[in-house]
Amino acid sequence: MTNAEEGKKAPAPDPWALPDVSGLVVGVLGGTGDQGRGLAYRLARAGQKVIIGSRAAERAQTAAAELGLGVEGADNAECARRSDIVIVAVPWEGHARTLEALRADLAGKLVVDCVNPLGFDKQGAYALVPDEGSAAQQAAALLPDSRVTAAFHHLSAVLLQDPQVEAIDTDVMVLGESRADTDVVQALAARIPGMRGVFAGRLRNAHQVESLVANLISVNRRYKAHAGLRVTDV
Amino acid sequence: MTNAEEGKKAPAPDPWALPDVSGLVVGVLGGTGDQGRGLAYRLARAGQKVIIGSRAAERAQTAAAELGLGVEGADNAECARRSDIVIVAVPWEGHARTLEALRADLAGKLVVDCVNPLGFDKQGAYALVPDEGSAAQQAAALLPDSRVTAAFHHLSAVLLQDPQVEAIDTDVMVLGESRADTDVVQALAARIPGMRGVFAGRLRNAHQVESLVANLISVNRRYKAHAGLRVTDV
Repeated sequence: MTNAEEGKKAPAPDPWALPDVSGLVVGVLGGTGDQGRGLAYRLARAGQKVIIGSRAAERAQTAAAELGLGVEGADNAECARRSDIVIVAVPWEGHARTLEALRADLAGKLVVDCVNPLGFDKQGAYALVPDEGSAAQQAAALLPDSRVTAAFHHLSAVLLQDPQVEAIDTDVMVLGESRADTDVVQALAARIPGMRGVFAGRLRNAHQVESLVANLISVNRRYKAHAGLRVTDV
Repeated sequence: MTNAEEGKKAPAPDPWALPDVSGLVVGVLGGTGDQGRGLAYRLARAGQKVIIGSRAAERAQTAAAELGLGVEGADNAECARRSDIVIVAVPWEGHARTLEALRADLAGKLVVDCVNPLGFDKQGAYALVPDEGSAAQQAAALLPDSRVTAAFHHLSAVLLQDPQVEAIDTDVMVLGESRADTDVVQALAARIPGMRGVFAGRLRNAHQVESLVANLISVNRRYKAHAGLRVTDV
């Protein structure tokens, strides 16, 4: 041990040194819904190649044509197969069924779950608790051959879809088990002007991120807002 | 119905028109811990009268003397009785036992629960799920004669306690069942430079706010930060 450097750990990699994802194809399952359509629009507007998926190819193609920007439409299976990154933006009610049916098509893909399991009653929204702990953990359980992450939960579909809005003033919390995967998703979020992708833990901590949308719905009602979240001091 | 105004709802009150809370006495149960001490310091520094509570009056008095700024120390029961607003900043492990013992002392008080039920293992922090749903709901169940709210979850004890830090760059999500009560807690948060109190729903949606601290711990580790949260578009 003559070298004072020996035994020292390598410095932690810069958390903002993220890969170039501009060449990756992004699929959006449930891309005809408000959230999926909004994300597809923003990513395509940022220059990403986007394929919208829906149960019926025709519906997806119609939505894609409305968006323009080179967006294509396909049935969910084709959308999954042709994409490098697949965002899951289907309603919670169809989440398990849709993913089960796409297990082979999603093998090897980077899956980004953005589903918020919520219930609604007269008092507003409240968190549902999936048996697996969260929608993201359900996805991971159903898709053992995919790399499952969670992100894009706290976005206002209204702002995403409004062409007058230039930048989206929010961070995107990104969760996952593999840094290589969460780095890609963070980089994807950062393609959208105004957004940053911020690593926010493992999938076992996805439930609170998903269900915080119930709180943002309360915020929106009280303040007549389209609330997002910024992580401070990062 | 000759008046066109009839049948119209009254306009929603301004969510930023909050009461003056500068004359209220704030107790901090668990005020000798990092979080409680930090909150006590910030509120006292903002001009609020603060009483720190602890199981042993002497420990509380020692901590209070260290803080200065007119802070007093007392045992938990006296702290509760002498305060208008009582912040619960005890460790989760002692939460139920402490509140049960103080039920009579806390009767009629505005209680602000800021406890985050978390577990820790080699992979970091994760959410614990109280039988009642959240620490705040447990407090509400144990304190039927108090007005229970939840707030102050996402604050860095390090930043709170650092006298060099002038302003705390974060919002405080405030939850509760009664607008009069949440308005008071929002106003209290706003006493601290940099902070805003933002209404974020009912107590049934407290779990995700409490357990989001597990995610902020991951953020802090990755980014070497003391993360907080801002709600955007409000």
